[in-house]
Amino acid sequence: MQTDLVAALDIGGTKIAGALVDRDGGLVVRAQRPTPARESGERVMDAVGGVLADLAASPYWGGATAVGIGSAGPVDAAAGTVSPVNVPGWRGFPLVERVADATGGLPVTLVGDGVAITAAEHWLGAARGHDNALCMVVSTGVGGGLVLGGALHPGPSGNAGHIGHISVDLDGDLCPCGARGCVERIASGPNIARRALDAGWRPGPDGDATAVGVAAAARAGDPVAVASFERAAQALAAGIAATATLVEIDIAVIGGGVAGAGELLFAPLRTALRRYATLSFVQHLTVVPAVMGNDAGLVGAAAAALATTARPLADPLSR
Amino acid sequence: MQTDLVAALDIGGTKIAGALVDRDGGLVVRAQRPTPARESGERVMDAVGGVLADLAASPYWGGATAVGIGSAGPVDAAAGTVSPVNVPGWRGFPLVERVADATGGLPVTLVGDGVAITAAEHWLGAARGHDNALCMVVSTGVGGGLVLGGALHPGPSGNAGHIGHISVDLDGDLCPCGARGCVERIASGPNIARRALDAGWRPGPDGDATAVGVAAAARAGDPVAVASFERAAQALAAGIAATATLVEIDIAVIGGGVAGAGELLFAPLRTALRRYATLSFVQHLTVVPAVMGNDAGLVGAAAAALATTARPLADPLSR
Repeated sequence: MQTDLVAALDIGGTKIAGALVDRDGGLVVRAQRPTPARESGERVMDAVGGVLADLAASPYWGGATAVGIGSAGPVDAAAGTVSPVNVPGWRGFPLVERVADATGGLPVTLVGDGVAITAAEHWLGAARGHDNALCMVVSTGVGGGLVLGGALHPGPSGNAGHIGHISVDLDGDLCPCGARGCVERIASGPNIARRALDAGWRPGPDGDATAVGVAAAARAGDPVAVASFERAAQALAAGIAATATLVEIDIAVIGGGVAGAGELLFAPLRTALRRYATLSFVQHLTVVPAVMGNDAGLVGAAAAALATTARPLADPLSR
Repeated sequence: MQTDLVAALDIGGTKIAGALVDRDGGLVVRAQRPTPARESGERVMDAVGGVLADLAASPYWGGATAVGIGSAGPVDAAAGTVSPVNVPGWRGFPLVERVADATGGLPVTLVGDGVAITAAEHWLGAARGHDNALCMVVSTGVGGGLVLGGALHPGPSGNAGHIGHISVDLDGDLCPCGARGCVERIASGPNIARRALDAGWRPGPDGDATAVGVAAAARAGDPVAVASFERAAQALAAGIAATATLVEIDIAVIGGGVAGAGELLFAPLRTALRRYATLSFVQHLTVVPAVMGNDAGLVGAAAAALATTARPLADPLSR
């Protein structure tokens, strides 16, 4: 029987994933339910309870000593509540208290999903060994998190690193958040597709009108498709450079579906970064793809819980 | 005889100020020389040496146990060198080593000038009691520094908080730093004046064509002058909101000559901040004027030195 496991939850707008995670970041048991995002808050909580019940049915459950939650934001770690934009039934929902009740009083750590993936990349992924890092997900939205001075920086409310909603174009297009010219408004997958369509690009025979379709067209040389990725790269570069200029990071790690476009995104991003990261102390900044994949949210939620309860993470080099 | 004083240096492009600072932030002795900014690096160092010699001539010098330096940036705190943009004779100049030599081997702490004023405002000024704060100077340039989690965040190289050179207008005007649309390129005093002049504003009878003249015209109702301050406020709001969204600050403190325009700047800044600081965890952000005045650089350099040498700052409330 393994002991000192963390029950990890990764709560998003489409699914609620759970796992028992060991001290090496291994997922010992998994569970998953769809998020009933359009239903009442209690129905969403029922789905969380279902995931926890599936984990509790495992023979390993007795080894669980803490719970780590990474949730779609905004979260309020100080209050223990969540208000995910895509889950309208949860507004100030007391998730920490409810999960503690559902697990017989285990200590619960809550962070935003961007902070969770950052914890994972810093523990076992592309940001390992970097004391000052920005980790991002560029997908349907744009999220992120920070490592500063060697430690995760969730901020008082667990939301720090929200790079998707900093404005890099103060007179730009209105973002659903209410501001203008946010990084997400320019660089997310749906915005890459929208911009290409607005400029006259049309999907190929497969009818894929998403950023994946735009990426395929760009690889085939379509200049409108290429330009849409270059614009996304420019906005990401401005945002990453701003972050480095403000807090001195030396690496930016980018995951998510849009990052899956590979050099189509990373090549213009590196070029643009040289234009925006100009001061001497940020010129050495590098940008690399994420490596933790779909489990980053779960592994990172576990890492955040272990960090909060002051138990040192296992050093992957000593395994 | 007072003991445990800090010899503080505030090094800018026009003057080199020095002081012996006591544990309550009081300036016991002062000294000052003009910066021979266009001369050789050794001549600039001679001026620093002159300031230190003036301090050493005081009967209090024997109480000095450390040196704190706040310097125009960029600095490299790890290497102990400075390369101030406005002092071309100093490029990678080993200031920490030279000051240590000149003071008989006292421990020397180096931070950027924005970090120094932040340390001062956090210790004794407008950011006192705030664990997460941005402090700024809006003047000929735009600089800043951060307090995160209750502690000064200089970053590995001592330059963190460089809000003047984050881009808030990615297609905007070219900044001398090489990027486009930097906060400083829009909000600094010279840019407020340039924008007003470009839009047709002309100085009054006193011939003052600086931001001070623009402020006077704005107070008299000149719409072009008002618009130039509003544009500066918009850029500052976008930059401050970006900072809060990235690292979760709850207060921004603004000093410097442009902040001296008072509500002419702060009123549109608060309005614009509501438009850019949209996420729930940054909506409570407040913006206030700095209170430490011209001595902030010296007091902050001393605070940074005391923090580095792990001696607790005196609590102003217990005096």
